[in-house]
Amino acid sequence: MKDTIRISAEKMRATFLSILLKHQFEKERAEACAEIFTANSVDGVYTHGVNRFPVFIKLVKEGFVFPNNEPELIHVTNALEQWDGRLAPGVLNAVKATDRAMQLAKSNGIGCVALANTNHWMRGGYYGWHAAKNNFVFIGWTNTIANMPAWGAMDAKLGNNPLVIAVPYNGEAIVMDMAMSQFSYGALELAKMKNEKLPVYGGFNKDGEITNDPSAILESKRVMPIGYWKGAGLSLLLDILSVVLSGGRSTKEITDDKIERGLSQVFIAIDLQQLKNYGGIETCINNIILDYKQSIAEGNKGIVYPGERVLKDRERNLKDGIPVMKKVWDEIESFL
Amino acid sequence: MKDTIRISAEKMRATFLSILLKHQFEKERAEACAEIFTANSVDGVYTHGVNRFPVFIKLVKEGFVFPNNEPELIHVTNALEQWDGRLAPGVLNAVKATDRAMQLAKSNGIGCVALANTNHWMRGGYYGWHAAKNNFVFIGWTNTIANMPAWGAMDAKLGNNPLVIAVPYNGEAIVMDMAMSQFSYGALELAKMKNEKLPVYGGFNKDGEITNDPSAILESKRVMPIGYWKGAGLSLLLDILSVVLSGGRSTKEITDDKIERGLSQVFIAIDLQQLKNYGGIETCINNIILDYKQSIAEGNKGIVYPGERVLKDRERNLKDGIPVMKKVWDEIESFL
Repeated sequence: MKDTIRISAEKMRATFLSILLKHQFEKERAEACAEIFTANSVDGVYTHGVNRFPVFIKLVKEGFVFPNNEPELIHVTNALEQWDGRLAPGVLNAVKATDRAMQLAKSNGIGCVALANTNHWMRGGYYGWHAAKNNFVFIGWTNTIANMPAWGAMDAKLGNNPLVIAVPYNGEAIVMDMAMSQFSYGALELAKMKNEKLPVYGGFNKDGEITNDPSAILESKRVMPIGYWKGAGLSLLLDILSVVLSGGRSTKEITDDKIERGLSQVFIAIDLQQLKNYGGIETCINNIILDYKQSIAEGNKGIVYPGERVLKDRERNLKDGIPVMKKVWDEIESFL
Repeated sequence: MKDTIRISAEKMRATFLSILLKHQFEKERAEACAEIFTANSVDGVYTHGVNRFPVFIKLVKEGFVFPNNEPELIHVTNALEQWDGRLAPGVLNAVKATDRAMQLAKSNGIGCVALANTNHWMRGGYYGWHAAKNNFVFIGWTNTIANMPAWGAMDAKLGNNPLVIAVPYNGEAIVMDMAMSQFSYGALELAKMKNEKLPVYGGFNKDGEITNDPSAILESKRVMPIGYWKGAGLSLLLDILSVVLSGGRSTKEITDDKIERGLSQVFIAIDLQQLKNYGGIETCINNIILDYKQSIAEGNKGIVYPGERVLKDRERNLKDGIPVMKKVWDEIESFL
């Protein structure tokens, strides 16, 4: 694309760091934040990396996100803890919650951290990769502001509540990071901009007809849950679980506030080293993927596992720089 | 429907019990098994209740399921245990695993049982209801024989690996019990028999075209994963997790054996009574459902939460008897 420039990871990280320091982030927290936004961009998840950075800074400037708040431990059981995120940056809270779930799993086999009053974790897959690279299974999810109708409904009462599941694989990881809507609003906007239809039905138009036209869905705001009634049901349950376990706010309460903050999240880790079959796990996963890859592919489509594309994006972006729309980078530099 | 008779829950339970006793089940195990198959039928899940009972008895008769084997504890950590199901009846193993996960959660906040070498758990939702009615959150899943292609593939390498999530609600429960395929083979057969199209696309025909024609999908065996690539990815991860955590067999290994047995399952329970916000949980869930129900419904479709339909089926079936196809009941009585 024209109007796209490539920025090296080093430059991106340094730029983010300068901006965060200028916006009252303490040094260590600024470094951690800059690293996560950069890593998400290196991994090709631009919507929750570089493209989202300006929104994040605005939320900090407007006083909705508190840069230097630390999450607070509210309640302890052996293997499950409840934390209050105190409206700190979502990425910092989420890394801390993931690390804490891993520690709990180290002592108990499985560990769970439920986190109330946190903010957007950006790319949930980051925490999955982080845990899996350290030999843990990761299961985590977040609620969001309402952006998807219940099945059979016309108005949005559900979040798209992304769910992340990760396991170690081949020195890297298999990471599923999926929203409960078939397409994100970002994906709809992109398809509209490129004047393309969606590859499969992505929602309903304002007359309630199923459609693959991104403009019609953006107009109706009726995005399709994955698997129709099934994804809508799963979204409802993920919201209930995140709220019940953390004692935090529901999609309804977040939506009533009009601004997406004060979210509820759950982080579950399982320590593979505690298992009897630990020595055989690598071979076991290799065998499953080997078989999966032997699927008879249709046409010249490849059969990829969740997270596989990330490795290619990462390699290319580390070599050539991260593709960034010039107008996005200009906006970011305006914060310097 | 003609050819459908109604059998009271008492008669069904007693009939199942007699048949199980005749097939070498010890008394207590026969009673527990009869109860679960009956309860699944009362709750309207006939495919994994009365309709499946003849298949279950055949597997016992053919020596694939061992009626009186007890699962064996293989490995212990504080909050996670690995068990070997020793090819005992799947429903008995699954109840035991659920109860054990609940005990672990009682001591640790969260508890996990990973179960290898078990058999078909019939209706996963049963264990969700069981845990939720006792004030626990339940998350569980099973792998299956390969019955669904990877995304972009023509041959089945994935199971439809049902996932169950449950929470208490209003003295009953909200229970999501969903396979990773949009429609079960049972649902496809039923639609074909009734000469109906599916309400949404349910797979591909043998020419690789997307279709809602159940016969074409039954011919190609290319069922649709929920959310296309998303459900396929989730299915792969659920298989990997069940195998890694239990040390049991993968969908590939089950499929190589040609018969669906020796499955791998995971049961996670969280004890709500251990949470700081326990006293507020009921109100919290009520408020979420209240808001959800206030969705603006399209046409005269109701907005239902997962598991809501079960309550209606249960009430009617307890009152009027459970609808059973006459030929199914005749087959069951032939085992007496």
